[in-house]
Amino acid sequence: MGAVILSDLLTEILIPVAAIIGIAFSLIQWLIVSRVKVSPERQSPPPANNSKNGYSDYLIEEEEGLNDHNVVVKCAEIQNAISEGATSFLFTEYQYVGVFMVAFAILIFLFLGSVETFSTKSQPCTYSKDKMCKSALANAIFSTIAFLLGAITSVVSGFLGMKIATYANARTTLEARKGVGKAFITAFRSGAVMGFLLAASGLLVLYITINLFKLYYGDDWEGLFESITGYGLGGSSMALFGRVGGGIYTKAADVGADLVGKVERNIPEDDPRNPAVIADNVGDNVGDIAGMGSDLFGSYAESSCAALVVASISSFGINHEFTAMCYPLLISSMGIIVCLITTLFATDFFEIKAVKEIEPALKKQLIISTALMTIGIAIVSWIGLPSKFTIFNFGVQKSVKNWELFFCVAIGLWAGLVIGFVTEYYTSNAYSPVQDVADSCRTGAATNVIFGLALGYKSVIIPIFAIAVSIFVSFSLAAMYGIAVAALGMLSTIATGLAIDAYGPISDNAGGIAEMAGMSHRIRERTDALDAAGNTTAAIGKGFAIGSAALVSLALFGAFVSRAAISTVDVLTPKVFIGLIVGAMLPYWFSAMTMKSVGSAALKMVEEVRRQFNTIPGLMEGLAKPDYATCVKISTDASIKEMIPPGALVMLTPLIVGTFFGVETLSGVLAGSLVSGVQIAISASNTGGAWDNAKKYIEAGASEHARTLGPKGSDPHKAAVIGDTIGDPLKDTSGPSLNILIKLMAVESLVFAPFFAKHGGLLFKIF
Amino acid sequence: MGAVILSDLLTEILIPVAAIIGIAFSLIQWLIVSRVKVSPERQSPPPANNSKNGYSDYLIEEEEGLNDHNVVVKCAEIQNAISEGATSFLFTEYQYVGVFMVAFAILIFLFLGSVETFSTKSQPCTYSKDKMCKSALANAIFSTIAFLLGAITSVVSGFLGMKIATYANARTTLEARKGVGKAFITAFRSGAVMGFLLAASGLLVLYITINLFKLYYGDDWEGLFESITGYGLGGSSMALFGRVGGGIYTKAADVGADLVGKVERNIPEDDPRNPAVIADNVGDNVGDIAGMGSDLFGSYAESSCAALVVASISSFGINHEFTAMCYPLLISSMGIIVCLITTLFATDFFEIKAVKEIEPALKKQLIISTALMTIGIAIVSWIGLPSKFTIFNFGVQKSVKNWELFFCVAIGLWAGLVIGFVTEYYTSNAYSPVQDVADSCRTGAATNVIFGLALGYKSVIIPIFAIAVSIFVSFSLAAMYGIAVAALGMLSTIATGLAIDAYGPISDNAGGIAEMAGMSHRIRERTDALDAAGNTTAAIGKGFAIGSAALVSLALFGAFVSRAAISTVDVLTPKVFIGLIVGAMLPYWFSAMTMKSVGSAALKMVEEVRRQFNTIPGLMEGLAKPDYATCVKISTDASIKEMIPPGALVMLTPLIVGTFFGVETLSGVLAGSLVSGVQIAISASNTGGAWDNAKKYIEAGASEHARTLGPKGSDPHKAAVIGDTIGDPLKDTSGPSLNILIKLMAVESLVFAPFFAKHGGLLFKIF
Repeated sequence: MGAVILSDLLTEILIPVAAIIGIAFSLIQWLIVSRVKVSPERQSPPPANNSKNGYSDYLIEEEEGLNDHNVVVKCAEIQNAISEGATSFLFTEYQYVGVFMVAFAILIFLFLGSVETFSTKSQPCTYSKDKMCKSALANAIFSTIAFLLGAITSVVSGFLGMKIATYANARTTLEARKGVGKAFITAFRSGAVMGFLLAASGLLVLYITINLFKLYYGDDWEGLFESITGYGLGGSSMALFGRVGGGIYTKAADVGADLVGKVERNIPEDDPRNPAVIADNVGDNVGDIAGMGSDLFGSYAESSCAALVVASISSFGINHEFTAMCYPLLISSMGIIVCLITTLFATDFFEIKAVKEIEPALKKQLIISTALMTIGIAIVSWIGLPSKFTIFNFGVQKSVKNWELFFCVAIGLWAGLVIGFVTEYYTSNAYSPVQDVADSCRTGAATNVIFGLALGYKSVIIPIFAIAVSIFVSFSLAAMYGIAVAALGMLSTIATGLAIDAYGPISDNAGGIAEMAGMSHRIRERTDALDAAGNTTAAIGKGFAIGSAALVSLALFGAFVSRAAISTVDVLTPKVFIGLIVGAMLPYWFSAMTMKSVGSAALKMVEEVRRQFNTIPGLMEGLAKPDYATCVKISTDASIKEMIPPGALVMLTPLIVGTFFGVETLSGVLAGSLVSGVQIAISASNTGGAWDNAKKYIEAGASEHARTLGPKGSDPHKAAVIGDTIGDPLKDTSGPSLNILIKLMAVESLVFAPFFAKHGGLLFKIF
Repeated sequence: MGAVILSDLLTEILIPVAAIIGIAFSLIQWLIVSRVKVSPERQSPPPANNSKNGYSDYLIEEEEGLNDHNVVVKCAEIQNAISEGATSFLFTEYQYVGVFMVAFAILIFLFLGSVETFSTKSQPCTYSKDKMCKSALANAIFSTIAFLLGAITSVVSGFLGMKIATYANARTTLEARKGVGKAFITAFRSGAVMGFLLAASGLLVLYITINLFKLYYGDDWEGLFESITGYGLGGSSMALFGRVGGGIYTKAADVGADLVGKVERNIPEDDPRNPAVIADNVGDNVGDIAGMGSDLFGSYAESSCAALVVASISSFGINHEFTAMCYPLLISSMGIIVCLITTLFATDFFEIKAVKEIEPALKKQLIISTALMTIGIAIVSWIGLPSKFTIFNFGVQKSVKNWELFFCVAIGLWAGLVIGFVTEYYTSNAYSPVQDVADSCRTGAATNVIFGLALGYKSVIIPIFAIAVSIFVSFSLAAMYGIAVAALGMLSTIATGLAIDAYGPISDNAGGIAEMAGMSHRIRERTDALDAAGNTTAAIGKGFAIGSAALVSLALFGAFVSRAAISTVDVLTPKVFIGLIVGAMLPYWFSAMTMKSVGSAALKMVEEVRRQFNTIPGLMEGLAKPDYATCVKISTDASIKEMIPPGALVMLTPLIVGTFFGVETLSGVLAGSLVSGVQIAISASNTGGAWDNAKKYIEAGASEHARTLGPKGSDPHKAAVIGDTIGDPLKDTSGPSLNILIKLMAVESLVFAPFFAKHGGLLFKIF
């Protein structure tokens, strides 16, 4: 088998150290961002330093309005309003979600405890029949604890992300006065704060939990890592509500604001006269930041849990090789270090000087992190794994070499990059697909929508092949463990991914603040340029999230099948096939709910905004202030109310199917929702991204072709705005929620597997 | 086992007799329709008869313009133009398709012949190893012949359907002068001509083919029915090109005509000043009539072939029980008789007097045919089956009772009705879903699209459960044979289904002719009412087509798996899983292609129409005639060119996957495309239907609510028109083509199964 080079003690030290470095780095970035003052006083003169990236180069770039105190005051005010709105929404959301969390925790305890009728007796292990493992009751208790920990970490991640983003947005706006490079770096650093904080704290909490649980479980690693899967479930269920609730919030406000403001009243986006404008900006923070933060944290937690639970029944687990067992955590630790170095390329090694450098800089982040991480994986695989080991593969043992596992992780990582770049190709207005969509606006909104939908469908092709190849290679090399680590590979650069992702909504908000604070056209142009790049990177981020979700779900599915003791999932049995076709339907059902919710909430918003324009005298002329609070309330109420049915659909389906139809049908449901959901998720988010950027393409008018379609307010531009509005719920509500749907159903099935295996399939038992 | 009540001789007689009765009935209906004269002379006085449905009751209903010779002349002219355009397009299409057909026939021969290296030696049978079966070369030759026969029957069906429809459209318009009841009956009778002709000739050709093949095959029924599957492949591959080519043709013209005419120039639909108007009307006939006729014929042929090939390896086949073997054909024969009686309810037993009676009359057709057919199935199952028999179930024999098989057919039949009514609920403007969509037009096109998409997604839920239940029950009762006969059950009332389906485009054309001939507003109102009912029934017809396609594909898939000698299709093997996820992607790829094609062709059409309006003096004022021919040519060229890539995707995928990746991966692809495609197909066609009827709801202004949204030309109406235009390619091009995609890939895999089983999976063999 060969020994592991890295000693267990060193592993015990290295993982938390990497996590702490990540957190420290995040704090440093935060400190740098906080040097931008958002206060009514005159900004204090910068410390004189000669660093290229310090703040001594004011005079290099043009300055504008730097002495205008009023603007700073206004920015601070708006930032406060956004931050308060977001905080208040998240607190309301967390109250409801908290109730659910407690109820579901009790459910987990009852279901899992009932497997052995709450007996405290030890039982023979599932995979090593000669050994004794902890009781099912212990599993129930620890799964519940892990669930709560995962849920809390997810909530805290989302909340902190939002806090950072609302802290950064006005600062980005103010920096935009000094030039696009300064604004970029502020937004990007703030994104990095969130990225590193999430990645590092996720790792740290998981690591501490494992070590604490080990105090009780001792040598029963099978039970230990089974309970740990609760952590993934907790993370993901919070993510679901975060994404759905936040997604409905942000898009109800956005669609409502656009429909009346841009289309009817012909006032610019983010105009302070629009009553829904604060709600819209709050939405960016609760949906795109908090929701996405929870989502990616969930993916990360689940892929780690999937890898760990599969590893626990391999030779690592059976022989208690701690370092090898911790391979998934070592990969994540290495990821933090690699991303740290990568970040320096954007913030310190190079400097953005012009608008056109923004997108390449962000793309370079992806390439650099992927390239460096490949080396990182090679190192971890070399020092953290025995040269040869065995993996459990549905009842048989499969022998795997360490370099084979390296390939599994690497293929996941590179597949992520491919998906990222394909997404970019289909959603960036630098390439022909989006330009074609923009061109189709010439003949009106209908052709724009037809072309946009076709683009989304088409954009599915290459990512699916990339996922298929990753699955085939990693499965062939190391069975389900291979797939789990491939997912982890895709997520290993999560800190950079999140940084880039968070950068988008921060820039978007910065633009909004600039508009609302009445800053000049040139400043708005700069923030728009940041935002356009952000749209594409947001789409890339969603691509990553979906791709990794597909792999994670498959790994979880594999773990579920192992744990539920099914040997084959044969499509040709009616039990499985009906599961497959119904599972493939669930993403449609879910999307129908979420889209309808956005539509209904937006209608309410439209009515309110119209009402204010019609009844508040002087609003249109900018003489009176709109009533922002009512719009914030509409979004809040709608999202809280509307997030429950889709949430219930996802959370209850595995329980109902498992309990009444049994594990075979549930397997079918998982496979069906996976293969169908991933397609809708990719196409929805790319269609939406393409429409958004087609509109921006026309607005920016950067090329001869674009100018023939514009300017703002022209018929093609109006058609483009309609497409953009339709795309909003697709790309920010239903699309990204779908990857949580497929992951969450899989991880939930895994957690409840012992119960289903024992008591499931009631309906078939009766008949 | 028990003997079969019906003697073999009687079976030999009854099937062709039923088919001939169907053809005769169709001719009688045609004769009645032909009594409406479309010629410049004064309509000859009707024969004096006292029949309630004769033509002696002119004075009962209001007459209008009956003496206006010019109108009749104009109608005849327009009818000629449409008929010529359609004929010329179909001939062009068939030329291209003919080349493909010959090439593919050669391919079938080469692939299947090569299985035993073109040896003429007999070989041991696959399922009865002790017997000798005909050589693989014979199988290759006869499969090729069956393929050609299926293709030719399909082409002839589509062509005749188109001829009948173009024969009937002007007649319907002329009858509309006498009242809505007369017009309805003319349109419906014409639909019946097509329905019965197709159902009966499909049955007859299949029956004759079987009997002729039997002369060679003798007792080798295994080989006989394997070759017969070529018939299904032929039928379906022509249907694919028909649906895709026709779909692109019709929607390019429709979208193009609407975008310039309705949206830009604000002239009514089907206004003769619009240069694309003839192309639009031609499109209805080549797309909705010829395409749909080929499609349903393909479904029928495939489900019969699937049932026969599965039956050939059951106890019927092994014991050579001819009557029991012909059970699928007996069901179809009974279907013709039942539909004949059902038709009389619409044409002779009741009479339509008011607009609001149209939809109930059509719905009654569905209910009556289903109820009667249930009795019919019971009779056939009682007299045509032994009381107990065995079915081949993936290597094991399963014992089945005749009443169990009755349940299988009946559940398919009733599931079809459920799907039909759910489709109606979601697409008819009599219910809240479409009214909600119409209401969302208040806030513009964007919310209309969001609500419409959500409606389509939601409409998938119940049909999928209906399909799942049918699959579960029929599979549990009689394995794959149960599913095949369930599909047949759903299609057993195909004559009525087709009649209702064809009624729609005929009414649509009738309205177009009324508008173009300058007939009065009241006549147009009547044809509009016919058309609105036709939209809903078209959606119902699509629901049937998709539901039956799902069952047929599964049955074919099962037959393929049996024939390729795979015992399980385990999702947990990487070979199958990658097939599953890639298969689930194919419908998206296919939809992207077809939608983009419609979009591009529509853009060309828009440019041409705009050009004509701008360059032909007096066109807008109605003083000059537009150049219809150029628009017809644009549609023709675009559809011929654009139908090739999606056609190639569908036809080549099984060949490539089977040859290079082998039968397991191909199984995954089939299962994936089935479970994913059926969802997109249902949602696309319902979304489109809902948008269309939401627009009609606003236009008709029949309720208080509808009037607040209208009238024509109001902002909500404009938004509704945009939705309708977007829905066009969804509901008439990509949606309905998808059910051919899933069926065709399955039947193609089945035909090529011996080759794949022997030589497939090259890539895995090399590595």
